[in-house]
Amino acid sequence: MIPSRKEVQDARERVRPYVHNTPVITSRLIDELSGASIYFKCENFQKMGAFKMRGAVNAILQLDAVEREKGVVTHSSGNFAQALSLASKNLDVKAHIVMPSNAALVKKNAVESYAGVISESEPTLKAREEEANRIVNETGGTFLHPSNNTNVILGQGTAAMELLEEMPDLEFIFAPVGGGGLIAGTAMAAHYFGDNCKTIGGEPMQADDAYRSLLSGNIETNDTAITIADGLRTNLGDKNFPIIKKYVREIIRVEEEEIIAAMKLLWERLKIVIEPSSAVPFAALLKEKNRFRGKKIGIIISGGNVDLSTLAF
Amino acid sequence: MIPSRKEVQDARERVRPYVHNTPVITSRLIDELSGASIYFKCENFQKMGAFKMRGAVNAILQLDAVEREKGVVTHSSGNFAQALSLASKNLDVKAHIVMPSNAALVKKNAVESYAGVISESEPTLKAREEEANRIVNETGGTFLHPSNNTNVILGQGTAAMELLEEMPDLEFIFAPVGGGGLIAGTAMAAHYFGDNCKTIGGEPMQADDAYRSLLSGNIETNDTAITIADGLRTNLGDKNFPIIKKYVREIIRVEEEEIIAAMKLLWERLKIVIEPSSAVPFAALLKEKNRFRGKKIGIIISGGNVDLSTLAF
Repeated sequence: MIPSRKEVQDARERVRPYVHNTPVITSRLIDELSGASIYFKCENFQKMGAFKMRGAVNAILQLDAVEREKGVVTHSSGNFAQALSLASKNLDVKAHIVMPSNAALVKKNAVESYAGVISESEPTLKAREEEANRIVNETGGTFLHPSNNTNVILGQGTAAMELLEEMPDLEFIFAPVGGGGLIAGTAMAAHYFGDNCKTIGGEPMQADDAYRSLLSGNIETNDTAITIADGLRTNLGDKNFPIIKKYVREIIRVEEEEIIAAMKLLWERLKIVIEPSSAVPFAALLKEKNRFRGKKIGIIISGGNVDLSTLAF
Repeated sequence: MIPSRKEVQDARERVRPYVHNTPVITSRLIDELSGASIYFKCENFQKMGAFKMRGAVNAILQLDAVEREKGVVTHSSGNFAQALSLASKNLDVKAHIVMPSNAALVKKNAVESYAGVISESEPTLKAREEEANRIVNETGGTFLHPSNNTNVILGQGTAAMELLEEMPDLEFIFAPVGGGGLIAGTAMAAHYFGDNCKTIGGEPMQADDAYRSLLSGNIETNDTAITIADGLRTNLGDKNFPIIKKYVREIIRVEEEEIIAAMKLLWERLKIVIEPSSAVPFAALLKEKNRFRGKKIGIIISGGNVDLSTLAF
């Protein structure tokens, strides 16, 4: 069941008071290099530093009073853990976050600073899911998947909606493809609210499950996913894949060197701190720039949470 | 002769079409850490990546038609070289830039990409000045000093004016102190257009000539100036020192470790790329935070031109 135009619009209004309408920035030099006119939607300036705040807020706001009382549960070692923690704090809901025992201390500290309650599990997907189930059974809380949840997807799409409100005549929007929540939400926003605006995904060659999924028509997985774009190692899910199949025009894959070069260029020229995943769609555009010459293009910069002591350049 | 209120206002109107009104950003966490409410004026997003664009534009716009025909001349190995080159290109004036023979290739390339004409000199101040004089004599062009020129100073002050237009009730504005152009322009803007808004300078302990100049009443120099804040190694001049003496309330000095820690914090929390000099006023505020608790404070982030391959963290 793909959400309706009205559901997408409603999510935009619902999250509006709780998220930043992040700035859109441009660069003369980046435009010269790419041959296109690019509008970067800077979700690195979003609360907690990534677009994930949007989906977390929208999902919590869709809970009724009884559900809110019982709290929310997720498993994540990345931005969604922080997003759900901060959104829960701001909306006065309790958040249980299952994190692998080997998660970086800096990530655990961030979750705790937002008042999320951490439960540790063994570092396997199975162990994380079991621990999340245990907490759901114990607390009666609502499990919210980081990317395969319709309300989360609708929330993520509000970044593209804001971008289209500011730039209604975009011909393309590029977004990274990880678990599929952002690209699915973006594609719905572009479909319903763009003027023939097409959505393109950027994906690391080293974790190209979504590219292969579009080819085969089934959700494919990665045997390995050794990419610097750590937010993009996950697979699609049954809630977002139908949306992606229907509304994403194409997925362009990029090599690790292309991701790193694109990230460095954006740091140097836009003067913004972005995480590797955020550079993937721009790397995809540069790779195929001859096809996009002269076009008006939006790019979702997904987030800026990066460990400055381990930069790739 | 300290410029009048009207001269400051006129500079604001003069540069308006040629510079970005850069964004002002805030951070809940930075405010918690400092105990103050801080508004960062982000000149790292200015054209060519630094506030220096403002002074270069204002100075060129004050030239008459004959002077413009003959071009402008400066000596600089830093941001002013790029600023004068880009401003000259945008205003269709020829710019001669004297750079030391050992200037970084990346800086020479940036100047040339903006169509500045580079003349190399031996890497001493004397050799640079002689080469600039030679070009002035040969071309009849106008020499523009990077910081000790009244029109440059007036241009630099327009960043603080924009900040005060957006946040009229700031109690303090902090800015870095290098050659003195930015802090002098900022102090005039705060004096004429703030509501009892006081200007505070931040300066590296390793290049504290301005701090000592305020104590002695004369322009002091640095025997050595070994600081990561490479934009702040220079001395004050006879045009900006009287303004600084009259309108800068205080200069706070910071150690190298304090500059690096402040820079890292701003990169991590504001998600912006800033150069070391830009972190100095925030480091100064953190150092004396008990005195500024609860205050509403503007900080000029001076620029974002930094070599990402040689970060200090």
